[in-house]
Amino acid sequence: MSKKIAGPEIERLVQLLARMPGLGPRSARKAVLALLKRRNELLVPLADAMQQAVDKIAECPQCGNLDTVAPCSICQDTRRDSSMIVVVEEVGDIWALERANIISARYHVLGGHLSPLDGIGPDQLNIAGLLSRVAEGDVKEVLLALNATVEGQSTAHYVSDQLSASGVAVSKLAQGVPIGGELDYLDEGTLAAAFKARRKL
Amino acid sequence: MSKKIAGPEIERLVQLLARMPGLGPRSARKAVLALLKRRNELLVPLADAMQQAVDKIAECPQCGNLDTVAPCSICQDTRRDSSMIVVVEEVGDIWALERANIISARYHVLGGHLSPLDGIGPDQLNIAGLLSRVAEGDVKEVLLALNATVEGQSTAHYVSDQLSASGVAVSKLAQGVPIGGELDYLDEGTLAAAFKARRKL
Repeated sequence: MSKKIAGPEIERLVQLLARMPGLGPRSARKAVLALLKRRNELLVPLADAMQQAVDKIAECPQCGNLDTVAPCSICQDTRRDSSMIVVVEEVGDIWALERANIISARYHVLGGHLSPLDGIGPDQLNIAGLLSRVAEGDVKEVLLALNATVEGQSTAHYVSDQLSASGVAVSKLAQGVPIGGELDYLDEGTLAAAFKARRKL
Repeated sequence: MSKKIAGPEIERLVQLLARMPGLGPRSARKAVLALLKRRNELLVPLADAMQQAVDKIAECPQCGNLDTVAPCSICQDTRRDSSMIVVVEEVGDIWALERANIISARYHVLGGHLSPLDGIGPDQLNIAGLLSRVAEGDVKEVLLALNATVEGQSTAHYVSDQLSASGVAVSKLAQGVPIGGELDYLDEGTLAAAFKARRKL
């Protein structure tokens, strides 16, 4: 989009940063300027933190979480309930659930959702790993904490089918009105789900 | 804002990225996940590009531009008109002017604008360097290409005063209706400036 500016090193940094989510070519240039201007407070530690991430962080061979130890610190945590596996689409979902501080179980990262149009079938997701973890016998419940999107829910259906032979209990997150949600602003699908799942007071 | 997630290395990367302009804690987490997911295509080259920037890029001792050579490639370029210095607030302004491909002169980066409330007086800006470059005698015109903001314009006034004794010609960018600008959407200040500087057809 633009002619070369100030040498290939800066240009390359701009182009790489522009490929991060949330940054475009324009904001990447702004970011690079900020980095170069705050060299010692920001650029130097960030370069170091990235190299540390390259060197140390890897996927957990058991659950697919990202951590500096393998198996990851969640899989190693013996205080966690080993009879429940919470299945999520992405590592970011683990972070969200851990921040909420509601679950003390193990996780399993599928690595996305089924999306035939993008060429993502069951073999592209880590479903086989989940089945073999369940087959080991310790697990009593699998909670499918997948996104409440069409793709997430059809993935949940598929995984649930695959698990049916194992005899393990399969559950999913409740759907309804989010806390703080105003009915006037909610979509019809959410209202319909909340109505269908209404509870006696 | 949140409890620790997945080890100090990831946490540190999130916190550093969140300090870049255009990214907050939430988008920094998204960015880190994208980096870790696209390790070889994005994280590894970005870590390398940042280290290269740390090692190689420095401020030009003459004009304040950022480059891998000192003096910078613009200062070294003998095809450029050495009788004109274009004064800008930040290095990003050089990039913008170079992209527009309209100027073939040397630059001088002040490093900001006068802002007494933030403790930024004449001594915090690189005005002394400009005066000594002008005193060397080659320069015939100084173009004050500062932002058309109150701070930018009061800085231009100050620099212009400082240059008055040197006998060099001092100019500034024209103000008026931007190309493609619709009058209906322009502020009154721009319209007033465009009216005052109207030209005979």
